[in-house]
Amino acid sequence: MTDDIRTKKLMNAPEDIIPEAIEGMLSAHPDLLRVEGATRRALIARDGPRDGKVGIVIGGGSGHEPAFAGYVGRGLADAAAVGNVFASPSPEHIMDAARAVEGGAGVMFLYGNYTGDVMNFDMAAEECDSIGIPARSVAVTDDVASAPKGREGERRGIAGDFFVFKIAGAAAEQGRDLAACHAAAVHANANCRSMGVALSACSLPQTGKPNFELGARDMEIGMGIHGEPGMRRGALETADEVSDELMDAILADMELGQGDEVAVLVNGLGATGLLELYILHRRVTQILGGRGVKIHYSWVGEYCTSLEMAGASITLLKLDADLKTLLDMPCRTPALTVAGTLAPAGTLTKRSHDGTAGAAEVDRSTLAKDGPVTPETFRRMMLAVGEAIHDNRDWLSELDGVIGDGDHGVTMDIGWSAVRKELAAPVDETITQTSTRMAKAFLDAVGASSGPLYASAFRKAGEAVSDRLNLDAGAVVAWVEGICAGIQSRGGAQVGDKTMIDAWVPAVAKAKEALQSGGDVSACLEAACAGARNGRDYTAEIESRRGRSAKLGQRSLGHVDPGAASAHVMLVAMHRALSA
Amino acid sequence: MTDDIRTKKLMNAPEDIIPEAIEGMLSAHPDLLRVEGATRRALIARDGPRDGKVGIVIGGGSGHEPAFAGYVGRGLADAAAVGNVFASPSPEHIMDAARAVEGGAGVMFLYGNYTGDVMNFDMAAEECDSIGIPARSVAVTDDVASAPKGREGERRGIAGDFFVFKIAGAAAEQGRDLAACHAAAVHANANCRSMGVALSACSLPQTGKPNFELGARDMEIGMGIHGEPGMRRGALETADEVSDELMDAILADMELGQGDEVAVLVNGLGATGLLELYILHRRVTQILGGRGVKIHYSWVGEYCTSLEMAGASITLLKLDADLKTLLDMPCRTPALTVAGTLAPAGTLTKRSHDGTAGAAEVDRSTLAKDGPVTPETFRRMMLAVGEAIHDNRDWLSELDGVIGDGDHGVTMDIGWSAVRKELAAPVDETITQTSTRMAKAFLDAVGASSGPLYASAFRKAGEAVSDRLNLDAGAVVAWVEGICAGIQSRGGAQVGDKTMIDAWVPAVAKAKEALQSGGDVSACLEAACAGARNGRDYTAEIESRRGRSAKLGQRSLGHVDPGAASAHVMLVAMHRALSA
Repeated sequence: MTDDIRTKKLMNAPEDIIPEAIEGMLSAHPDLLRVEGATRRALIARDGPRDGKVGIVIGGGSGHEPAFAGYVGRGLADAAAVGNVFASPSPEHIMDAARAVEGGAGVMFLYGNYTGDVMNFDMAAEECDSIGIPARSVAVTDDVASAPKGREGERRGIAGDFFVFKIAGAAAEQGRDLAACHAAAVHANANCRSMGVALSACSLPQTGKPNFELGARDMEIGMGIHGEPGMRRGALETADEVSDELMDAILADMELGQGDEVAVLVNGLGATGLLELYILHRRVTQILGGRGVKIHYSWVGEYCTSLEMAGASITLLKLDADLKTLLDMPCRTPALTVAGTLAPAGTLTKRSHDGTAGAAEVDRSTLAKDGPVTPETFRRMMLAVGEAIHDNRDWLSELDGVIGDGDHGVTMDIGWSAVRKELAAPVDETITQTSTRMAKAFLDAVGASSGPLYASAFRKAGEAVSDRLNLDAGAVVAWVEGICAGIQSRGGAQVGDKTMIDAWVPAVAKAKEALQSGGDVSACLEAACAGARNGRDYTAEIESRRGRSAKLGQRSLGHVDPGAASAHVMLVAMHRALSA
Repeated sequence: MTDDIRTKKLMNAPEDIIPEAIEGMLSAHPDLLRVEGATRRALIARDGPRDGKVGIVIGGGSGHEPAFAGYVGRGLADAAAVGNVFASPSPEHIMDAARAVEGGAGVMFLYGNYTGDVMNFDMAAEECDSIGIPARSVAVTDDVASAPKGREGERRGIAGDFFVFKIAGAAAEQGRDLAACHAAAVHANANCRSMGVALSACSLPQTGKPNFELGARDMEIGMGIHGEPGMRRGALETADEVSDELMDAILADMELGQGDEVAVLVNGLGATGLLELYILHRRVTQILGGRGVKIHYSWVGEYCTSLEMAGASITLLKLDADLKTLLDMPCRTPALTVAGTLAPAGTLTKRSHDGTAGAAEVDRSTLAKDGPVTPETFRRMMLAVGEAIHDNRDWLSELDGVIGDGDHGVTMDIGWSAVRKELAAPVDETITQTSTRMAKAFLDAVGASSGPLYASAFRKAGEAVSDRLNLDAGAVVAWVEGICAGIQSRGGAQVGDKTMIDAWVPAVAKAKEALQSGGDVSACLEAACAGARNGRDYTAEIESRRGRSAKLGQRSLGHVDPGAASAHVMLVAMHRALSA
């Protein structure tokens, strides 16, 4: 049943929707916003950032408007990094924002707790560290439907973003330092609980197709703002029954009683109008009143949407004196104006942040030259990997279609195509330098989580061979081990989670065995291939434990993980290119 | 094709949607809003109305949220009268608002130019006059798609409401008198042009069915905010093409050139999100820039919706220095906060407005007592009419289904059922008093335009026999003539417009002929029936010229007007009841 899906959109080319919407935002709010960065994905508050103030950088995928750029302005966020629809902004976008708002007091990153966002913002935070900008992050985790009590850290961020952003923005506006702003945001997040209901899917502009299926008379309680599975599906109930169920779940998860005060957000997901949202708020008021909980202030409207999805969410923020003060402070942004007198705007001194400071000249005389894999051989191996990924693109996407978004082949091909373009011509450089360029090309091209994962992999692999000009067997194994370590340190997956790690870990183990047995480069890579294949096939026997496919449980049995499959493809291509 | 229609709604009983949403608004915005009136349909700004300030009363049907109650608050409207979904508030609702905000400087009514709203607000304005509250009205007419240039007065009001309300609210806040506030609102309306596009229908909560049909790949340019027919239907085009077409129509209708300044509103109709609206604004900026027109300020979002309809509208307000000043003035309402310092709130002296002042005691000794129609006979005749309307309800709705909303039978039955309830027990009163009670009962029960029309009819008919206790033939004819005159003075329809007037006018003419020929009451009513039947049948031969069916043109040929048919039913029932 997809009768309830609307796929018509007022847009031009689907690939232009975000750049054109950003241009539209700038044209509509020239008094509030300006843009930064070569890719024009960082929207900056005109009069927000200033010397001595912590820079508040928010961001995430598009499709949740007014989140995120609608909250950029005086007294709230200083900048937003804008990703594509339902895809995290890249570290480059985030750094464009961070550099533009940094006033010497550091920056704080705030975003919803999604794998892609966490990895991209983490990479940006590391880059901030490397160029001397203190950075702290808070991933918002307000959705009680997304993980049980006790595992709050795994929860998704939904409309609670609104409250956490407001609190952090006000704390920074008050002049608190980075640690204090971070503490305020963490406190707000800890006091914030949400749950939503979906009445219809939405359609992605790129595909024009609904992002999930929902019966014409059904609802899904607890669904996420990208269509992530909720807690239960059933026939649509009355507004009061739905409110009761959402409030029951929220109140079971937070201590609220006589005399407590809360702020309330009843949020529309896109196609659900104010009449309906106010009917929900009526019930929320009754329920809180019945417990003796006082509402300090309410917002009702569209504050964190899911394109044109029909549905709503309820968010409560438990208040104390400090949170109340911060919530009530004035702000002025496209999506939220809290009336009051703003202090005069300050000035922001332009600071120089040299992002290439780490790329020092390499003294090649110190590098080991033994081994058959020269920088040029390595370049040809990488080009071969790119070709192999391209050739296997559709197969990899088909594998992913069974247990995921169905885009793994396409995504990997996008990343590797960027690498192939970057490495098209021979350059006189070390393998470490080539690996670093690969990392940047892959990262800038891929919005999905494989971007940060393989970018981290290439960097770590390159670092592992930084003492070498050419690679011998031990260095090749070290490079492969670096790939595995980079992915693990970025993504945190363990063996048995049914991810690409299930191919890389046995690949490294087998390669090390071959090395210890005196194997040459070819033998070591061949062993790695065998290990990766075993690992890949093993993923068909286990249940998914991470990412969206984790929700499938036993239904993921019998299907290999596409990330493990692409890992095997890469190793085979490296081995063949070496032998060719 | 109704694949794109979502009929799921977060509500309880459909008949409770407006009372519950109002309760929700009050619970969400207790600092801004309070409610007035026994029927709780007048939302009042907590700190807006005050002595010496013109009271700004806006209103209209629900389903356009945040219009209308979202614009109630300091610096904007003092009150909103809230109708049912897509149905005008009644004069009672409007008067509850007017009485609550009146500070001795008069009230101004602002609403979209729709037949039902005009009649209900006009009746309220007359009541204001009768109790000593000066009242002026402005019906907003910004929709260029709804009537050609030169017939601006016939145009519908859509999102331009936003600008006209803001200007009028600011003028009143500044302390201008009623004439000056009225002039500012008229000026804003004259400088305001809009046009919209619909991508999907919406569904009414009462019916759960789409309010029109639109192909899954189609759009309708110029469609109204209740689904009124637009200018053309066709395949959905790009956002730029759609913007160009809307802007072409707007700019062909207003003088705008180098150096002019405008305010822009890009408004979402319900299911269309900010990404798309900003893409439209981008194009609007390009088009205005190309003409050398400067944008003073822009609003992008949902400001006047059509439930969950997908689509958008563009509104331009041409500015001069005064309009700019008024637009920039601060305000604070649920849907619009313009930052700035508001003057301290004033006090409002409670005034007494005795609405029953006109209902003086009747000295029966002065009344004519000849004639066979006693007050009790009249009461029984009216009960018979009510029964006849009930018996013909489905047939009347079927007639209406062909050329209108399909609800004429239902609406008339609702009104007459209220009359039957009101007249259920005999009361010792005059026929004039009975007619007045019928008017109030019918009006309070019926939101559609037949409410004000027949309420005015009953009042006028009652006044026509105010010198009588019993009715003779001449008085019965005078009563029928009063019905006709009341409808004409309220609705303004002429013979040949294909309305109920086409039955009532010949009914009066034939009845007068019979009276002049010496006919008794029965003969006069019989002649009226014949006249009404001729007139009713004549409506099948002419094209509709008023109301929604006017858009059908020749397609309305061959179908009798349901209003003319119900007029005939009423007269036949009166005649039969007299003879019984």
